Amino acid sequence: MKLLYPTSLKLDVSSLEGFSVSLHPYDVKQPIPDDLIDADILVTWTNSPTNLQDAAARMKNLRWIQSLAAGPNDVLSAGFDTENRVALTTGSGLHDHTVAEHALGLLLNAARRFYEMRDYQLQGKWPGHLGGPQPDRPSDRFTTLRDARVLIWGFGNIAKSLTPHLRGLGATVRGVARSPGIRDGVEVVAEEKLPELLPQTDALVMILPGSESTRHALHAERLALLPNHAWVVNVGRGTSVDEDALVEALEKGEIGGAALDVFETEPLPEDSKLWKAPNVIVSPHAAGGRPQDAEALIAYNLRRFLAGQPLKNHHRTESSSRL
Amino acid sequence: MKLLYPTSLKLDVSSLEGFSVSLHPYDVKQPIPDDLIDADILVTWTNSPTNLQDAAARMKNLRWIQSLAAGPNDVLSAGFDTENRVALTTGSGLHDHTVAEHALGLLLNAARRFYEMRDYQLQGKWPGHLGGPQPDRPSDRFTTLRDARVLIWGFGNIAKSLTPHLRGLGATVRGVARSPGIRDGVEVVAEEKLPELLPQTDALVMILPGSESTRHALHAERLALLPNHAWVVNVGRGTSVDEDALVEALEKGEIGGAALDVFETEPLPEDSKLWKAPNVIVSPHAAGGRPQDAEALIAYNLRRFLAGQPLKNHHRTESSSRL
Repeated sequence: MKLLYPTSLKLDVSSLEGFSVSLHPYDVKQPIPDDLIDADILVTWTNSPTNLQDAAARMKNLRWIQSLAAGPNDVLSAGFDTENRVALTTGSGLHDHTVAEHALGLLLNAARRFYEMRDYQLQGKWPGHLGGPQPDRPSDRFTTLRDARVLIWGFGNIAKSLTPHLRGLGATVRGVARSPGIRDGVEVVAEEKLPELLPQTDALVMILPGSESTRHALHAERLALLPNHAWVVNVGRGTSVDEDALVEALEKGEIGGAALDVFETEPLPEDSKLWKAPNVIVSPHAAGGRPQDAEALIAYNLRRFLAGQPLKNHHRTESSSRL
Repeated sequence: MKLLYPTSLKLDVSSLEGFSVSLHPYDVKQPIPDDLIDADILVTWTNSPTNLQDAAARMKNLRWIQSLAAGPNDVLSAGFDTENRVALTTGSGLHDHTVAEHALGLLLNAARRFYEMRDYQLQGKWPGHLGGPQPDRPSDRFTTLRDARVLIWGFGNIAKSLTPHLRGLGATVRGVARSPGIRDGVEVVAEEKLPELLPQTDALVMILPGSESTRHALHAERLALLPNHAWVVNVGRGTSVDEDALVEALEKGEIGGAALDVFETEPLPEDSKLWKAPNVIVSPHAAGGRPQDAEALIAYNLRRFLAGQPLKNHHRTESSSRL
């Protein structure tokens, strides 16, 4: 049995040894070489669309794809028979820490107005209005995470990783997700409650996956429910925010600002109004992109695959992803 | 007995009622009015030098000054008889959270390179090199707090407040202070150990007070001991860093960058080379400036003052400040 692992990241391959499986490196930007085309298992990371499409057409023995990306989209769109023959597992969880850290950084960038300080610095000017004695936690501005009301929309593993940092800094955290309940001690409510929660939000953190059902989840009507000082942070998928409505809300001062790591189109097009809209922080899809402890996930799933047990992060079954 | 409280910040004066003391507001930028000049207790916050000098000369009954600033310097330089007649207590502790939050924000700004993203945004350019797939925790760059080695020089209350946030994000924290030991579970060493510690540091956080003994504590020789990728963050006092040596280290690429909230001269002079030195983040003394829970400290010390007990944060006695 052959497992192909990508050379697009540094993997400690010795952590995958000990199984009755041979391990073979491959280039994710080239077609799979003929002598590896009969592999059973493919680990993917930043594969080119061409590579994946070619693999989908030619890898007749393939039974399992372990992606290291947080979502399944690149593999799904390549044409693998993931409905029947090929199990697809994602790298959900490998990016929790790094995305949470980035989200925290964006929140502090917004609250402490580092982006505005930078604008002054580039002009050699001291932004005196941002320093010296300041009012402590004014209710009409987002200046600190202490006592800030943070609402996390899309309450999965990344949100669970982010929450302790926010609470440690004194924020009150609530979540929004399809299934309501208490998760890791956080009150998570269904989307129907948004009209009640949005007006009580100082910072809205979006961590929604990209799908038809989340498209423009944050639209004009919901933006209008946020307080004028509220910030929007998006580290999920760009399609979950209606960017035209967001630009309008920013330009009219209906929200405090937006720190965005993802966009409807990436790279952000030159003619996007987001570049120059007031109080926008443009981050170039930099939150994740660094899978951590990938070897542990691959080895864990490899053992389960060989034993015929359900796989972790199987993209079709919600329950198995909670193992 | 009269207590004068400043109108330069919002105080919940009701939290100070219940003592045999009358409470009077005063303007910190004007001379103390004649009818209040016989007060026994003065609470200060952002007082003008003129106000303080005038008070020092005219308040003959004054016995106690409760400053809300972290340090005693403004009061000390006004000429009060703090050696004998007037007890001086500082606001040490009131700024811990807000300075720690700012320091954390500066560290994440450095690691996630938000300042560089901003430069691109202002030009309408997508900084592709900062986004997408990235190497995870490369040893020759400071890209995340996870597994980062953070050294905090000046290990007092602010450092204790900052440490849990750094550890929560996966950093290893060590401290430097005059008296070595284990504080809040952190290994704190004496300055003599710096030659050993600096080469093992990814981020050096300076939280030293301003005094002759800390002047240029971070000088050329010590800067040279830091790895080329190491960042310096200063939220203490600007005089603790030799800025000429810092600029030289930055321009030669001998350190990774510097995120500075304090400077030898503030506002930073127009001709300072720090404005344009590579990888410098200029923050306008914005870390603190927002005393939190000041009422609790004033009320606590007021009761002790009336009872003739030692005061918290008494500037002359180190031990009383640890109550």
